[in-house]
Amino acid sequence: MALNFPTKKRTIQQKIVNKANLGMDLEAMINESNEYYLGNDIAVIHKKPTPIQIVKVDYPMRSKAVITEAYYKTPSTTDYNGIYKGKYIDFEAKENHNKTSFPLANIHPHQMEHLKNIIKHGGIGFLIVAWNTYNEYYLLPFEVAYEYWEGANDGERKSIPYQTFKEKAFPIKEGYIPRLNYLKTVDEVFFK
Amino acid sequence: MALNFPTKKRTIQQKIVNKANLGMDLEAMINESNEYYLGNDIAVIHKKPTPIQIVKVDYPMRSKAVITEAYYKTPSTTDYNGIYKGKYIDFEAKENHNKTSFPLANIHPHQMEHLKNIIKHGGIGFLIVAWNTYNEYYLLPFEVAYEYWEGANDGERKSIPYQTFKEKAFPIKEGYIPRLNYLKTVDEVFFK
Repeated sequence: MALNFPTKKRTIQQKIVNKANLGMDLEAMINESNEYYLGNDIAVIHKKPTPIQIVKVDYPMRSKAVITEAYYKTPSTTDYNGIYKGKYIDFEAKENHNKTSFPLANIHPHQMEHLKNIIKHGGIGFLIVAWNTYNEYYLLPFEVAYEYWEGANDGERKSIPYQTFKEKAFPIKEGYIPRLNYLKTVDEVFFK
Repeated sequence: MALNFPTKKRTIQQKIVNKANLGMDLEAMINESNEYYLGNDIAVIHKKPTPIQIVKVDYPMRSKAVITEAYYKTPSTTDYNGIYKGKYIDFEAKENHNKTSFPLANIHPHQMEHLKNIIKHGGIGFLIVAWNTYNEYYLLPFEVAYEYWEGANDGERKSIPYQTFKEKAFPIKEGYIPRLNYLKTVDEVFFK
């Protein structure tokens, strides 16, 4: 049952070198970090596939099925989940291109509902928000997001101010290996 | 020696009746049960979307994006995961149309590797196998599946006999609400 971890590690390093200064997007950074976590037996966390509504599939002779008509569906859960230190972990990752606030329209109602359920059942749930303008990454506790979310539904502001991230969210440092060591922040917040 | 036509007829009729009443494949039964579990605050378990490799997307004016070329990808994890009684739970569901054995070719190597990782990290991992011929459903412990899996890789038989399910797997009863109460079996196996 030897897993080929060394190869995997080399692949990851190679990728990092290639993308060193190219500005990787948040999803790629998290996926790469998840590969590192998996390869080093730290956690098993995967991104869920994008939900697609398949309408038409062709079966050309001698080749594999080709989907020729399909549509993106609204996700009913978050993008990432898995297991860490024996605990169920679940989060949504969002990039924010604004400078002063994070618009709540970025989050689907289903995703908030899902995270609320996860926490009710004893899991770890949160959001990761990238502030692209500042090259900053935050673990945003669900409770903070939910407070603003409910406020917005009650006619209050429809975004979370940058200042709130400074005060109530937890910074995730960008690094080398893994690229975005968000589990270190999870440790600080959930396993103190 | 009596020819067994009546029995055969009965079997066929039985099948038709069953299908008329159920008219549901394993995935639909599990999804419906998961909705019940979610709605009744018992567990949060979702099916992951089918992984698709998107090659071409069109953006017709005034309408939403249309995927016009895409392919099915091999899944890198199992189909279902979530949280139950505060524990991470993860499983793969397979239908078996054979009468005497369950072919291991039904399971992707990635899925076995994934379940192994999940258990190593303290999660609950297993398979649900439907024997369509008999209308029987089983929770197959990962350890049992893995033993046969390793055997097959060592040149031994490439399937799990029906008898092994009778001896080492745990029956899941088909019901009304929820349709397939597999968490009852999970209770018996993992929470005794």
